[in-house]
Amino acid sequence: MYISKSFIPILKNIPSEAKIKSHQLMLRVGMIKQSSAGIYSWLPLGLKVMKKIEQIVREEQNKIGAQEILMPTIQSSDIWKESGRYEDYGEEMLRIKDRQNREMLYGPTNEELVTDIFRASVKSYKSLPQLLYHIQWKFRDEIRPRFGIMRCREFYMKDAYSFDINDEEALFSYNKFFLSYLKTFKRLDLKAIPMAADTGPIGGNLSHEFIILAETGESKIFTDKRIFEVDSSGSKLEKKSLEDLRSKFEKFYSVTDEKFDKAEFETKVIEKNRLITKGIEVGHIFYFGDKYSKPMDGSVDLPGGKKDFVKMGSYGIGVSRLVGAIIEAKYDAKKEVMKWPISVAPYDISIIPMINKNDKSSLEKANKINLELEKNNIETLIDDTEENFSSKIKKMNLIGIPHQIIIGKQTENDSIEFKEAGEMSQKLKLSEIIKIIKKQKEEN
Amino acid sequence: MYISKSFIPILKNIPSEAKIKSHQLMLRVGMIKQSSAGIYSWLPLGLKVMKKIEQIVREEQNKIGAQEILMPTIQSSDIWKESGRYEDYGEEMLRIKDRQNREMLYGPTNEELVTDIFRASVKSYKSLPQLLYHIQWKFRDEIRPRFGIMRCREFYMKDAYSFDINDEEALFSYNKFFLSYLKTFKRLDLKAIPMAADTGPIGGNLSHEFIILAETGESKIFTDKRIFEVDSSGSKLEKKSLEDLRSKFEKFYSVTDEKFDKAEFETKVIEKNRLITKGIEVGHIFYFGDKYSKPMDGSVDLPGGKKDFVKMGSYGIGVSRLVGAIIEAKYDAKKEVMKWPISVAPYDISIIPMINKNDKSSLEKANKINLELEKNNIETLIDDTEENFSSKIKKMNLIGIPHQIIIGKQTENDSIEFKEAGEMSQKLKLSEIIKIIKKQKEEN
Repeated sequence: MYISKSFIPILKNIPSEAKIKSHQLMLRVGMIKQSSAGIYSWLPLGLKVMKKIEQIVREEQNKIGAQEILMPTIQSSDIWKESGRYEDYGEEMLRIKDRQNREMLYGPTNEELVTDIFRASVKSYKSLPQLLYHIQWKFRDEIRPRFGIMRCREFYMKDAYSFDINDEEALFSYNKFFLSYLKTFKRLDLKAIPMAADTGPIGGNLSHEFIILAETGESKIFTDKRIFEVDSSGSKLEKKSLEDLRSKFEKFYSVTDEKFDKAEFETKVIEKNRLITKGIEVGHIFYFGDKYSKPMDGSVDLPGGKKDFVKMGSYGIGVSRLVGAIIEAKYDAKKEVMKWPISVAPYDISIIPMINKNDKSSLEKANKINLELEKNNIETLIDDTEENFSSKIKKMNLIGIPHQIIIGKQTENDSIEFKEAGEMSQKLKLSEIIKIIKKQKEEN
Repeated sequence: MYISKSFIPILKNIPSEAKIKSHQLMLRVGMIKQSSAGIYSWLPLGLKVMKKIEQIVREEQNKIGAQEILMPTIQSSDIWKESGRYEDYGEEMLRIKDRQNREMLYGPTNEELVTDIFRASVKSYKSLPQLLYHIQWKFRDEIRPRFGIMRCREFYMKDAYSFDINDEEALFSYNKFFLSYLKTFKRLDLKAIPMAADTGPIGGNLSHEFIILAETGESKIFTDKRIFEVDSSGSKLEKKSLEDLRSKFEKFYSVTDEKFDKAEFETKVIEKNRLITKGIEVGHIFYFGDKYSKPMDGSVDLPGGKKDFVKMGSYGIGVSRLVGAIIEAKYDAKKEVMKWPISVAPYDISIIPMINKNDKSSLEKANKINLELEKNNIETLIDDTEENFSSKIKKMNLIGIPHQIIIGKQTENDSIEFKEAGEMSQKLKLSEIIKIIKKQKEEN
């Protein structure tokens, strides 16, 4: 793809309304454009990244046996009155009257709607467990939307729901998502730590937030720093293995501020291991038993002939927020260098030829190299503009494509200037460059 | 995938509220579930089909150089006031007040929002043409939603927008979409005919609807039946070739009822070629020049230093509606046999073993066959239930997976009972079955 043909509107300066680096960078390289307060359009560069994140989230949901559905954005208030949350939810719920004057709303979450689907379809314990997820736009009418897509009003989220016959099975489902989330964030090259958390308007008494460390995070966290060393790589989708995994994490005190207890923290964590810092919530899982199935009559026939309400959990990942979270984690704002993990990078490699009006030979070389890369399914962005070389490099460093090829007059196929974004360059053969990128892609 | 593990809630009877066969079938095999009037959830079977349609639509947009963006569902009324459509649009627009009492709306279409993106980003004729598309949920508050997802309120749509320097270039863009649509519908195994159409609330004076014939269609069409024989296969993405393509179609009188003129029809079409019938609109393209760019100041610098408003068109495909349209075209309601085109089928093949409580050997054979199919990337749904054989066949015929394997006690690998849904069966080797399916998939 030529940069001159692509819709990547670059801004020269950092917009003053952007206070954190993800918001700054996303506006600057044209990943998003604000359309109204807390509501954004995704431009090609931003959408490419978000779609790749979405696909990784989807694959990891499928791996634990969750099935994808898609619930609508607009819901009737009726089911929220059944669960009792219609009044509780407050002003963050966008309430709507349709032309027939019916009370509708833009779903901020989907416990009610999925329970309605479940109760209409599943009648017997034999059909359990059921794990259903969807990836859909949500709306929360924040009073003060801020930080770009990190705390906006319309956002893209994966939410999953589990239905089980009893607490034991329900906790097995909960733990499946627990592992799935660790794997998902790992593929995004993020170190996300599960922390005991408050359940808020979702309800229940068991909940974990998955937090990545970031100075600009809105969650205050109190943790034993040894939790960052927990190894989850050997865990399997079996009850015992998943329980062990949970225990390995829960051995270390680690909470968000709603759950913080100073005395407990100081008793359980010796001073040198204490870490008080900030983080960004990228996932949140809840177990709430029959909180929704009971008022909404989500019951199944049991083996003996009796009925019981199913035990439910819900499991969210902020797909659009993750785009910002990855920037917060990976963008060096001082050097002005972003480097996307290869798994979600908008392109795998950029080619930066030195071009001037009278000599396009570098561009021709770029085209040849691009042909080879395409054959190997390596996605390329070529800067075919006549801007001066240093501003081209600066622009590409912001766009954050993880690899760069620089082409001058002397460049030949057996000695190409190749670098990781922001690193020193080296001279490599094209075949070696292809090998490096393919290997990285396979590992992710 | 085992049918017992999948979330496919089959209904025994045809729901009385469903009046047309797509609505009946989609409810019956659990593709969708109504959540409120004109609003549906997509269950796994329906979502699989819709996602495959979406991907084909996306690929064909990319092929003509359109770039994918994603605009939000909730828009500010401000831009609609700029274009002058806020009052015009009427009650089909879902109007919303947020907690700050700002006038918002759920986008029924996106001409205003995309013009706002364009004017903020593109300043020079050198960046033209720009073709931008997105695939997003829309809402139109129909007074009488009906026919399931064919005329619902919340629907999934691809809409694209073109921006050009003058009429000639704009018509080139229009014609690119014209060809792209023919190719898209062909990959869905639909014969969609472009017909001169009214422009309605979008505006402009050039417009085509793409219509597929169906008794249950809501569009009345008047056409020269020879239009069905027009061959578009040799057309290229070049001005002249695309103009020729348009001419080949426009030689034959073919209009929807808003454009119908009896005298003209009878003059231009001899009696034996006249066809008056009904159809389903699956796509609609518009050219409207500066209708939006002028009031919203979407202008670019021209070569000589002057400025001019860009010339725009818009291009819609009803992605969710296409799921229903394909059923209307492919479902034989008398025989109760559906057969999805392989390009969008939820699974490529079903395996139906005869199982009873005491003998699971057929299921074991099914599992072995499934392993081989999986190795060849062939997606399989296995009916592992103990229902009687004829009700299994009936169910699979409704689900509409295009190929079936039937396994009895005598089945061996070198002689498997294989059939296209609804056809006679034949005995084939597994390797031959794999070859047939792979060939069909490659061709689509």
